[in-house]
Amino acid sequence: MSFMMDEIMEQPEALGRTLEAELNHARAFRAFAEKQDFRLIVLVARGTSDNAALFGRYLLEVTTGIPVSLCAPSVHTIYHARLRLRDTLVVGISQSGEGSDINIVLESARRQGAYTLGITNEARSGLARAVHEVFLARAGKQRSVAATKTYTTQLLLLYLLASALGPEITVRELSEIPKRAAAALKLASEVKELVERYRYMRQCVVVARGLNYANAFELALKLMETCYVVAERFSSADFLHGPIAMIERDFPVLAFMPPGRTFSGLRKLLERLKGLNAETLVITSEGVRLPAATRALRLPVDLPEIYTSIPYIIPGQIFAACLASIKGLDADKPRSLQMVTKTV
Amino acid sequence: MSFMMDEIMEQPEALGRTLEAELNHARAFRAFAEKQDFRLIVLVARGTSDNAALFGRYLLEVTTGIPVSLCAPSVHTIYHARLRLRDTLVVGISQSGEGSDINIVLESARRQGAYTLGITNEARSGLARAVHEVFLARAGKQRSVAATKTYTTQLLLLYLLASALGPEITVRELSEIPKRAAAALKLASEVKELVERYRYMRQCVVVARGLNYANAFELALKLMETCYVVAERFSSADFLHGPIAMIERDFPVLAFMPPGRTFSGLRKLLERLKGLNAETLVITSEGVRLPAATRALRLPVDLPEIYTSIPYIIPGQIFAACLASIKGLDADKPRSLQMVTKTV
Repeated sequence: MSFMMDEIMEQPEALGRTLEAELNHARAFRAFAEKQDFRLIVLVARGTSDNAALFGRYLLEVTTGIPVSLCAPSVHTIYHARLRLRDTLVVGISQSGEGSDINIVLESARRQGAYTLGITNEARSGLARAVHEVFLARAGKQRSVAATKTYTTQLLLLYLLASALGPEITVRELSEIPKRAAAALKLASEVKELVERYRYMRQCVVVARGLNYANAFELALKLMETCYVVAERFSSADFLHGPIAMIERDFPVLAFMPPGRTFSGLRKLLERLKGLNAETLVITSEGVRLPAATRALRLPVDLPEIYTSIPYIIPGQIFAACLASIKGLDADKPRSLQMVTKTV
Repeated sequence: MSFMMDEIMEQPEALGRTLEAELNHARAFRAFAEKQDFRLIVLVARGTSDNAALFGRYLLEVTTGIPVSLCAPSVHTIYHARLRLRDTLVVGISQSGEGSDINIVLESARRQGAYTLGITNEARSGLARAVHEVFLARAGKQRSVAATKTYTTQLLLLYLLASALGPEITVRELSEIPKRAAAALKLASEVKELVERYRYMRQCVVVARGLNYANAFELALKLMETCYVVAERFSSADFLHGPIAMIERDFPVLAFMPPGRTFSGLRKLLERLKGLNAETLVITSEGVRLPAATRALRLPVDLPEIYTSIPYIIPGQIFAACLASIKGLDADKPRSLQMVTKTV
């Protein structure tokens, strides 16, 4: 087995450990945040961590009402802009904590008056030293270049942050997450069989909307880096504004379809794709039949939409790891990549 | 010739007309904005207009110091979040002004205390009615489904907005834009010859950084919707955090390489891609030799980096229009698309 698959399997424990260790921290942060009255949240990250940030963008706006901006690092690192960041919470996310551009942005934001918070897996990293406060992931050492358990623990810490900044995310629901992740892992053997069908897939599109939009980015990134599939990713709305023209017979479209507010829009898209004779693979936990889907992976667990993001990426991670394996590729060591990528 | 190519050619006039008509408006807005003292700018758009918004994000942060957030429409239209938008300027961008989700966001933002501004080509649209104030593009009627002149006039209006909100963008430089667009059009015959080489291109990556990052999105979108090429788009920094693993011998990478702050990073990437035996096509106006590039399109004009975005997309637009043509496709009527896409 690959390190990647090992680390996928470790996720229930990594999530449980992280939740237990940081729960009181989040409670304390709630009191601090109430005094601070943040007017804006800026999230800064790269790669998989940037996909976690994209999740945080939706979760934090939807549950706290505080506007969120996803930072463009070059504004700080290349153009040296001085932004007005008073009353702003700037959150840096990095597995290793050694992304040089992320740390430059955090230091610059701190000088410009922001309160800075780091989400990282490494307590002694440059990121941990640069920020006012660290929410620490306990994912254990990451040995595969393709990040999996660090992505989901980052998502969990963003839920904890949301629980500190608004009323909607509750500890009771968060404590269900490790169990729900374990339920998602039960799909492993089904995914392993299914993946044979995609042995020769060279390109695809991954779509989702809202809280699962980040998962579309993350699954596409996993497919690009471990399987060398040219994987595009779109919100199902943006997809209709142009890219759908690419779709022809047999073109594979992967879709995250949680129950709740994004479901009916995605179902309509699925029907349209069936009309174009595209191949569709759906990840869902919704019970209704989906006759328009070519294939479906059903999570054996009942989930409120807002808590789907962590369990839903798991069959995607397994899909990428298994597909890499049957393509004869080493998911742990993608060509051209290192564990820590330094960019400015 | 296609409507698309006609409209590409109309851009110097469309830009000149728009600039002349809106210059005094921008001056008046400056006085208003000084009183308002905006703390945050939110940009909301879809499709090509969303690529214009992505440009606005960089331009406005770099030249005004006001933080910018690219709106996730579903936060408003699907999750019905109530964001704290006091002291916020919300800018909606839409060619037709009839994007239903954009208009819903603008109405909701207005109720939540934001000042709303619309950038549109249609003075009598729903968008124009929804906002406090309109910056009106004078691109003339758009007849091709693939937007070109409306994209560059939207960029121009974002420059005008930046000139009203900060000191860096000057009217003197803006008045050069129509001429510089005309200079870029001189590449048409060279592009038409070059495009033969890409007759069988099925997938590619477009990269850029900072102020031209939006052009990477826009060129990729043009290639997807008019040529059905699976075109990925990345910041050259994000590209190194995973997707570069896709690159193998002959994989085409298109790059915007303006002079200035992003040049050296892109040159390094180009050399790395040469090492991977990728095919690279560079759009640049920088005079230095680029031995690592497989092909280069050189704009015959001297440009400060901050004013490259409009001229640089033009050879990209021509490239897409010509490639569609030699692939035997109708760039004006991409399959599966309509002129106005309505999403919620």
